Amino acid sequence: MSDTSDTYETHDLISSDRVEGTAVYNPQGERLGTIQRFMVDKRSGKARYAVLQFGGFFGIGSDYYPIPWEMLAYDPNKSGYVVELNQEQLGDAPHYGDSAAPEFDRQYGKEIYSHYGLTYY
Amino acid sequence: MSDTSDTYETHDLISSDRVEGTAVYNPQGERLGTIQRFMVDKRSGKARYAVLQFGGFFGIGSDYYPIPWEMLAYDPNKSGYVVELNQEQLGDAPHYGDSAAPEFDRQYGKEIYSHYGLTYY
Repeated sequence: MSDTSDTYETHDLISSDRVEGTAVYNPQGERLGTIQRFMVDKRSGKARYAVLQFGGFFGIGSDYYPIPWEMLAYDPNKSGYVVELNQEQLGDAPHYGDSAAPEFDRQYGKEIYSHYGLTYY
Repeated sequence: MSDTSDTYETHDLISSDRVEGTAVYNPQGERLGTIQRFMVDKRSGKARYAVLQFGGFFGIGSDYYPIPWEMLAYDPNKSGYVVELNQEQLGDAPHYGDSAAPEFDRQYGKEIYSHYGLTYY
């Protein structure tokens, strides 16, 4: 990619490839991990889940936690997303490892939303 | 990335990194190019523009055409997006080259929407 990507972020918009890899913080400002990728509704173009990546070394041995997109708040000062997440919530949250990505079907979606106390869309 | 990404596409959802690089066809089934990236509303998570990449060789000498996301229709048979675009529309459509990405501000957005006969959000 040889284009300049400096302008791929504006007040309102952010480029998809800039979201991937963006840092995620808790409200206390502690860095939790990064957004590995996000899941988009094919028809509406609405982002549904951000997949947070915690731990690991260059992606090896990482854990992946899909969370409802609406839990993310963008903080321009941090150039990152802030998520209200604590260790308790993460302890038994839906997640997976390197070798077994789940199917993001309705059932899995309901499980995720319900875990975080949100109503499934 | 060592996770299996086979399941990162379901009936409804597609992974952000799978959208990037996805082929784009016209309704006649001709391959126009690929989606280079897409621009997302930071707050709502709504995809606003797909940036189509036409021509070039490994991204060198390419032209980039941002189009409103709502113009894309996903075709599972093609594993790609179908866009109603003809040469005439593309001829004078907003686009840019490798070295000069525009700022995706309100004015540029209105220009894009108006070109394709759509109402700016």
